[in-house]
Amino acid sequence: MIGVILAGGSGTRFWPMSRRDRPKQLVELWGDAPMIQHALDRLDVVEQDDVPTFVVLGEHLLDVTSRALGSLDDDQFIVEPCPRNTGPAIALAAAYVENRFGDEPFGVFPADHFVGGHDRFRECLALAESRARDGVIVTMGIEPTRPETGYGYIQYENSGDDGLSSYPVSSFKEKPSRRVAERYLDEGGYAWNSGMFVMTPSKLFDEMQRQLPDMADKMREIRGAIGTDEERAVIDEVFSSVQSVSIDYGIMEGADDVEVIPATFEWSDVGHWASIEEVCEPDARGNVSRGDTMLIDTTNSVVYSADTDRFIATIGLDEYVVVDTPDAMLVMPKKRAQDVREVVRRLEERGRDDVL
Amino acid sequence: MIGVILAGGSGTRFWPMSRRDRPKQLVELWGDAPMIQHALDRLDVVEQDDVPTFVVLGEHLLDVTSRALGSLDDDQFIVEPCPRNTGPAIALAAAYVENRFGDEPFGVFPADHFVGGHDRFRECLALAESRARDGVIVTMGIEPTRPETGYGYIQYENSGDDGLSSYPVSSFKEKPSRRVAERYLDEGGYAWNSGMFVMTPSKLFDEMQRQLPDMADKMREIRGAIGTDEERAVIDEVFSSVQSVSIDYGIMEGADDVEVIPATFEWSDVGHWASIEEVCEPDARGNVSRGDTMLIDTTNSVVYSADTDRFIATIGLDEYVVVDTPDAMLVMPKKRAQDVREVVRRLEERGRDDVL
Repeated sequence: MIGVILAGGSGTRFWPMSRRDRPKQLVELWGDAPMIQHALDRLDVVEQDDVPTFVVLGEHLLDVTSRALGSLDDDQFIVEPCPRNTGPAIALAAAYVENRFGDEPFGVFPADHFVGGHDRFRECLALAESRARDGVIVTMGIEPTRPETGYGYIQYENSGDDGLSSYPVSSFKEKPSRRVAERYLDEGGYAWNSGMFVMTPSKLFDEMQRQLPDMADKMREIRGAIGTDEERAVIDEVFSSVQSVSIDYGIMEGADDVEVIPATFEWSDVGHWASIEEVCEPDARGNVSRGDTMLIDTTNSVVYSADTDRFIATIGLDEYVVVDTPDAMLVMPKKRAQDVREVVRRLEERGRDDVL
Repeated sequence: MIGVILAGGSGTRFWPMSRRDRPKQLVELWGDAPMIQHALDRLDVVEQDDVPTFVVLGEHLLDVTSRALGSLDDDQFIVEPCPRNTGPAIALAAAYVENRFGDEPFGVFPADHFVGGHDRFRECLALAESRARDGVIVTMGIEPTRPETGYGYIQYENSGDDGLSSYPVSSFKEKPSRRVAERYLDEGGYAWNSGMFVMTPSKLFDEMQRQLPDMADKMREIRGAIGTDEERAVIDEVFSSVQSVSIDYGIMEGADDVEVIPATFEWSDVGHWASIEEVCEPDARGNVSRGDTMLIDTTNSVVYSADTDRFIATIGLDEYVVVDTPDAMLVMPKKRAQDVREVVRRLEERGRDDVL
């Protein structure tokens, strides 16, 4: 199976660690490598042969991502000339996959998510690859553990099987209200949409032809130009004219033969600072800390010193986030973690390019 | 009146802004000068002539204080060879005053307190100087506004006069319990002991002779050596052998002719980070901030960026303290402001000289 990593995100919710020129996927949130490196590493355990992984990203992130991932070749990067959401991004990847490797299944993975349990991840993807070879579009679903309103949901026909299975998808649900999310949780038969998909290029192009024929035509034109002298020029011109649409809304919701595999591995989209505890084991007092810190009477908090030797002392914090970087720092209660976007918005408003 | 500024304190409660080699009095807590400079400046409005102010401090603080106060001459510094508390420090100052200027009243002022209302400060000191010339030891008292347990109290014979007056002191009270402090506040007739005193050298030596005769002998020996070639050697030898005792306990409590002038000026000992709002006017949301900050939904908080250009963003803080310096930062609720000492204690324990 060929891996495609979507690395075009700009993720502002990890400011001040994430910045314009170092979005979330390039941040070392855990371990000693950026998130995208973890995403690549976990595909190593999936790929049987020397099939390369593609990384899809915007022009402005190419250099910095290439430097962060020293081991990739230039032709593993698929550069979008402009952002057109996940639909065109994945279609572009499919064009490259088909051009280089023929109609082989490929898996699409966000660069900035956490996956725990690589053996189970491999099992899930092996099943997904097998289903994709049968002409199915497979989505990886995550069993909901809370009435989360920040994710899309996938309703599926749960036949009650235990263990690893692929189920027909009944419908894709947009991010629900709290009340609706609670109902999904109560009723069962819903999975979070993880944004991970496995399919063949031909299946994607068939569905695109049926649902987004204009995009399909343009993507075929691009596919034809890959490997020619015109490759860059055609992509730059044609891709820019393609409709901006998510893969979920543009393809999945109306597609035939869509199945979901409820994941048996651990997963988090690590959406904000308060969710860091889902990927970094908190200490006995519930703290996740990094760097030179002294946490006095501090519990259930995140204290991160990033790329700096500065010493951080905290006294009497509970459920707080403190993040320090060489030129900017942030302090907030965990419950305000979503509002980091507000800091970034105001910084943009004030033209504070120095800390954006 | 001759001014004597006590600048020997090490004040750990303003860490990380205050450090071993930059104690509280050398920190620019407000305005654009260290606290000791403010203390000197406010004596400028008191001194009629070109009578110099003395600064009493330990050897280890001489260079750094001298540099911070570029305008002082070397002979304005009175160096204690070792710390012996306020009793010997003030006696040493009295010896210098008498040696240089004869039996002139001198006022003793901590280097790290805040005084607001310089006209009223001058009025109080003019009265104090006049009483001192009549052989009285005058203490400046502060009208209590809360049942503070961190200060000593002065009980005095309040004759009910309005306006500026000097009252006989009945007794000095050590730092009280909460319950006792509340009683003092209810009963009235008590003032906080501000640590500011005005007296003549002869009165101090007389009281010392009566209460601490050994210290009086030694201080007279020192007084005789001032201005001779033996000055430094005698001070180094004799001062070190003097008993360590506070002026309150050693002299004031047992002294005759002690009066208190309830201050008509504003005062704060600026004891910890939460008391910064007593000297820096909070903004409309109750915040005191310095440096490059963005305070989102933040109220009644202290956010200080000291000697650094780093940007600080806060979201959703109420009654918090955030202090950032080039090599160390601190986050805590205001109510834990006294516990900064605990950070310093642990840093000492761990030998963290780099941030002490």
